[in-house]
Amino acid sequence: MNKSSFGTHFTVTTWGESHGKALGAVVDGCPAGLSLCEEDIQKFLDRRKPGQSRYTTARKEGDLVEILSGIFEGKTTGTPISLIVRNTDQRSRDYGNIALSYRPGHADYTFDAKYGFRDYRGGGRSSGRETIGRVASGAIASKILETLGISFCTYTKSIGPVSIKKFDSEEINNNAFYMPDADAAARAGAYLEKCMKSQDSAGGVVECRITGVPAGLGSPVFEKLDAVLAQAVMSVGAVKAVEIGDGTEVAHMNGSDDNDGFHFENGQISKTSNHAGGIMGGISDGSEIILRAYIKPTPSISQPQETTTCNGKNISLEIHGRHDPVIVPRAVVVIESMCALAITDALFANMTSRLDYIQKFYTK
Amino acid sequence: MNKSSFGTHFTVTTWGESHGKALGAVVDGCPAGLSLCEEDIQKFLDRRKPGQSRYTTARKEGDLVEILSGIFEGKTTGTPISLIVRNTDQRSRDYGNIALSYRPGHADYTFDAKYGFRDYRGGGRSSGRETIGRVASGAIASKILETLGISFCTYTKSIGPVSIKKFDSEEINNNAFYMPDADAAARAGAYLEKCMKSQDSAGGVVECRITGVPAGLGSPVFEKLDAVLAQAVMSVGAVKAVEIGDGTEVAHMNGSDDNDGFHFENGQISKTSNHAGGIMGGISDGSEIILRAYIKPTPSISQPQETTTCNGKNISLEIHGRHDPVIVPRAVVVIESMCALAITDALFANMTSRLDYIQKFYTK
Amino acid sequence: MNKSSFGTHFTVTTWGESHGKALGAVVDGCPAGLSLCEEDIQKFLDRRKPGQSRYTTARKEGDLVEILSGIFEGKTTGTPISLIVRNTDQRSRDYGNIALSYRPGHADYTFDAKYGFRDYRGGGRSSGRETIGRVASGAIASKILETLGISFCTYTKSIGPVSIKKFDSEEINNNAFYMPDADAAARAGAYLEKCMKSQDSAGGVVECRITGVPAGLGSPVFEKLDAVLAQAVMSVGAVKAVEIGDGTEVAHMNGSDDNDGFHFENGQISKTSNHAGGIMGGISDGSEIILRAYIKPTPSISQPQETTTCNGKNISLEIHGRHDPVIVPRAVVVIESMCALAITDALFANMTSRLDYIQKFYTK
Amino acid sequence: MNKSSFGTHFTVTTWGESHGKALGAVVDGCPAGLSLCEEDIQKFLDRRKPGQSRYTTARKEGDLVEILSGIFEGKTTGTPISLIVRNTDQRSRDYGNIALSYRPGHADYTFDAKYGFRDYRGGGRSSGRETIGRVASGAIASKILETLGISFCTYTKSIGPVSIKKFDSEEINNNAFYMPDADAAARAGAYLEKCMKSQDSAGGVVECRITGVPAGLGSPVFEKLDAVLAQAVMSVGAVKAVEIGDGTEVAHMNGSDDNDGFHFENGQISKTSNHAGGIMGGISDGSEIILRAYIKPTPSISQPQETTTCNGKNISLEIHGRHDPVIVPRAVVVIESMCALAITDALFANMTSRLDYIQKFYTK
Repeated sequence: MNKSSFGTHFTVTTWGESHGKALGAVVDGCPAGLSLCEEDIQKFLDRRKPGQSRYTTARKEGDLVEILSGIFEGKTTGTPISLIVRNTDQRSRDYGNIALSYRPGHADYTFDAKYGFRDYRGGGRSSGRETIGRVASGAIASKILETLGISFCTYTKSIGPVSIKKFDSEEINNNAFYMPDADAAARAGAYLEKCMKSQDSAGGVVECRITGVPAGLGSPVFEKLDAVLAQAVMSVGAVKAVEIGDGTEVAHMNGSDDNDGFHFENGQISKTSNHAGGIMGGISDGSEIILRAYIKPTPSISQPQETTTCNGKNISLEIHGRHDPVIVPRAVVVIESMCALAITDALFANMTSRLDYIQKFYTK
Repeated sequence: MNKSSFGTHFTVTTWGESHGKALGAVVDGCPAGLSLCEEDIQKFLDRRKPGQSRYTTARKEGDLVEILSGIFEGKTTGTPISLIVRNTDQRSRDYGNIALSYRPGHADYTFDAKYGFRDYRGGGRSSGRETIGRVASGAIASKILETLGISFCTYTKSIGPVSIKKFDSEEINNNAFYMPDADAAARAGAYLEKCMKSQDSAGGVVECRITGVPAGLGSPVFEKLDAVLAQAVMSVGAVKAVEIGDGTEVAHMNGSDDNDGFHFENGQISKTSNHAGGIMGGISDGSEIILRAYIKPTPSISQPQETTTCNGKNISLEIHGRHDPVIVPRAVVVIESMCALAITDALFANMTSRLDYIQKFYTK
Repeated sequence: MNKSSFGTHFTVTTWGESHGKALGAVVDGCPAGLSLCEEDIQKFLDRRKPGQSRYTTARKEGDLVEILSGIFEGKTTGTPISLIVRNTDQRSRDYGNIALSYRPGHADYTFDAKYGFRDYRGGGRSSGRETIGRVASGAIASKILETLGISFCTYTKSIGPVSIKKFDSEEINNNAFYMPDADAAARAGAYLEKCMKSQDSAGGVVECRITGVPAGLGSPVFEKLDAVLAQAVMSVGAVKAVEIGDGTEVAHMNGSDDNDGFHFENGQISKTSNHAGGIMGGISDGSEIILRAYIKPTPSISQPQETTTCNGKNISLEIHGRHDPVIVPRAVVVIESMCALAITDALFANMTSRLDYIQKFYTK
Repeated sequence: MNKSSFGTHFTVTTWGESHGKALGAVVDGCPAGLSLCEEDIQKFLDRRKPGQSRYTTARKEGDLVEILSGIFEGKTTGTPISLIVRNTDQRSRDYGNIALSYRPGHADYTFDAKYGFRDYRGGGRSSGRETIGRVASGAIASKILETLGISFCTYTKSIGPVSIKKFDSEEINNNAFYMPDADAAARAGAYLEKCMKSQDSAGGVVECRITGVPAGLGSPVFEKLDAVLAQAVMSVGAVKAVEIGDGTEVAHMNGSDDNDGFHFENGQISKTSNHAGGIMGGISDGSEIILRAYIKPTPSISQPQETTTCNGKNISLEIHGRHDPVIVPRAVVVIESMCALAITDALFANMTSRLDYIQKFYTK
């Protein structure tokens, strides 16, 4: 339970704090022969980079990744890939005034409870910056999956009360919120202006759709594909709920509505619906995997909040400094990365599920 | 990803199929010195036993547990505890007519996709009977937690459209649905009658509240306590969504509403609210842990459904035989057991989080 | 470190004690489609069964295995295989007189030190009977390996001062010691008679040769194939040293003698010698893997030994009851089984070592 | 099996190649509150640094470690500690002539067999430089153990035919070979001169003694303390045999000689001998743990050797460049580090072995 690693076959270990020298990850189990360069990873990191719109923290970070090992002549060698991103703009003085107090909605109190003390300059390991290592690793997993025809479409479904009304995949990268609906993006912007004026913040929902996943990935019991995806996504700070397919809706449905039928045509079996979100009994069914993450509002707000100091003084706290009024847009690539890690691990595990697979492999 | 094990420090491995000789579990990492007898485990198993009301399958199973190892003179020895429950009433003939067809909402198709064939007599590892091993192990975890003052209150929050309106803990074990509200239970019964008449089934919501968990359990990154709970609960068949605290609601809240403040009084720090559901930044904060599982309707219904056979013939399938119109009530103890396993693992992991803990331990 | 499991991809968990109701194992990760019946496993168990010669304990155990799960219509299903062997002849009264004393060379004292108490009727988890679960699982691994042309030749190389002088594979199963040399077996028998007369016991060496292992299995760092084999073999009680290839000899050799050259002929690369024992840099090189386990004499001897009781009384202890004067012959199949588990795990892991392997697999 | 990680509770992941940009390790599970600075780690790294005597490679590397995370104000925070050492003097041109040929005694051939290609500039992950990450991590483990009164005495027992005749712990750090016997060190030097003249190399034996380990560490089955130590030590390149206590000798001993008796005096139980090397039934017995690693001669020698190229041309190869005529002295700190990692992991695991331990911990 204290491990900073994810995945059994494709294993990612992240390290680093918001106000340390650097952050990074070690990817162990990446197969040899994948073309990989820093640009492949940088593209992903740029999707979560701060300072890209007025709705994200003004903290300026280049977030430039360096690959330290595991690559030779442009290809992965099969040995661990070490990734590092240096922190450049820490401005820890911003945090001085909150060094001794427990910020509501943050992990300050629970860190002290667990470790006895903490890096009071910022979120440390609980900072959103920890996700740099996840996203850098997710870029590698995504590149492997891409070669197998597996692709991700991840976007903001809602911010506060504003939900998308239509789906235009082209639009996703055209607005600051990664919403597939320009009007919704405009309304979300207006809503966030209101939040910022009232020194408040908003939450939202990220949806991830994964296409091209072959049927048969996952496992029937504790490591169901949906269970592993749930851990992967819930492990992203600020996510408070995860659902697959129809998700919470199923609790109100009847079996006759919820069940997906099967149909056979032109030598292909397909489902007549996809309420299950692409996973049946913990194993992928070949249709689109659909997952939603519910993200809480940014806890750092500048209006006064009731809290206490480490030494038990009750105070009213105002958090100034640089914070996103909403973290949902920047979480999009993080959720996608975690899903990519989980799917890659399941793909690798599946290769030994049948004796004929193993025999074919070893008797070329 | 093909592992049937859960937990790093307190490790449970389950085995067995619905129509095999037996089901069971091996619990490795249970500390020595716990008083344990078969009755302790049977009490838990009886909470999930079929045939207890007209709303659960008529399949008659004693589900009597036998402890095969790990106990000496009434106490655990610290070595693996092997638990077995024999299947007695399999009646696999019931399933003959569906041997070759893919039941909608079941794992038949995905099992064939993964393994190339399956035990066509029933759900095999995907059957609800697999949870026998989980519940038997959960009983042991719960007994450990009980000695530490950690207790669980788990119940049915809703069935189909019927939600509880009040909370009377006394009532939970007085009705067939484990609802803390007698009126709701009556309305749920009436609703299920309707479902059964229309050859249909219903879903619902299970809520689990865990009290007495000390602050400091969990981990800041991939093994956040909420992430591990999410995997644990989502790994229960039919669960399609998991939420902690305010869960999906947070997506519509503002930071000023969602944040929990802190207050110091009489030498104690407490929270002014518990929107977070007892976990901040992946680590327990000492307040009640609140979790909800959304469960889909029983997929086996006797009205005709469109599907195909393994060899691609499109058919209309009617599933007769013995099935619960709703599995929510029997899932209550399964969800509780999975939470107990996750909390126990976190408790054990936490013991090495500080050097002073380790020094105190080894320098008695 | 308290886990009773071995293997990451092909995972075996053993349970049970010498004087409990039963012993067994759960094999998780066995691929679907392997023909498997109880006879396949019984053949292996019979190789370690007691009471087969006057040099093994007179304890009578049928050691009949029952498969409880994971098989359907004679084939593995890909789900956990649960194996059980009931204890029938425990005669725990034999042990009454040593219930409170620490037997020299046994784990009695260390068990009390770790767990605070122990099953004083016998060795419990430290008994040689624990290996029943290992051997039953090894039989399954060996059957998988057999389908890939990987085979084992394991035998007794020496007992006490008696070493084999020639190698006749036919002879291995013709004598009570599994020695490939009939004369040596005769001399070993004579030596053991002497030991028994003097109420003493002997040790010896087991050698395991594995042929057909493809080049490329293993890993360059912590999970070197030889490192994993070393753990596997050293985890067998009474083994005090493990060596690969020339083993301890290399410490006295020069590089020019120890290095294995390479030679290319008829499109094949082969080694000009095999000092390395088939593993270079932790990865198999395609030649025969050669491993030796050094086994200590049976600790239970009936001559008086100085020891203390649990409550600190110094006594002279004579251990009567039924014990092998040498455990080496019965360890042969245990060593072989552990090697089979390690090789199987490495085979499975290797399937994801290259991107082209994965692409070929998923783009049929 | 492809994992670059060691340890379940105190987990080390190493990365980096001999001719890459850098090497390093991530230590996950280090408890919070340990005073740690770069000097603590540098002291260990300096013990394995090249270029310190004429018997070690002339390759000049500062091997200066930088701590990138996990430390705040001089203390560990409980989060992952990332360690990095930059490569400065790679001189890969030295290796140009062997880029395409398989060096006898090296992992060149097996790397190609596993991964399809390799970094032909040097040993890559199989280079002795990989041990930098192990030693840096071992320094942290040793510092934890030191606070618990556990200490290591590791030294060279023999080089080629030269064995130590006396033990003077003061002497260990006074000679280039870390031998506790000045005369033996002088003779070893003379022997190595001969080896170097004949363009050859030598092997040897490293012995590690661990004092202060409490009784009760380890586990009875697969993760016996000696089994885990065996994997740890055998995972060090060039180690071909590992033994505990009397090791290979036990095969020729009788039970009456090999058994360690127990004696009670002044409220203390002690052993009358230590043939077992401090571990009984896989669990530490409180006496000194004694372990030996047998190390092969440096494979890189400049006399001509028969081998082939990757494309199957038989050639005679002379390896010039900078190589140690013996690696044993530099392996001393590597073996010690691996033992420290294994003992630390066992210490942490042991804290949950009894219910009363857990209850005492959580009911302060």
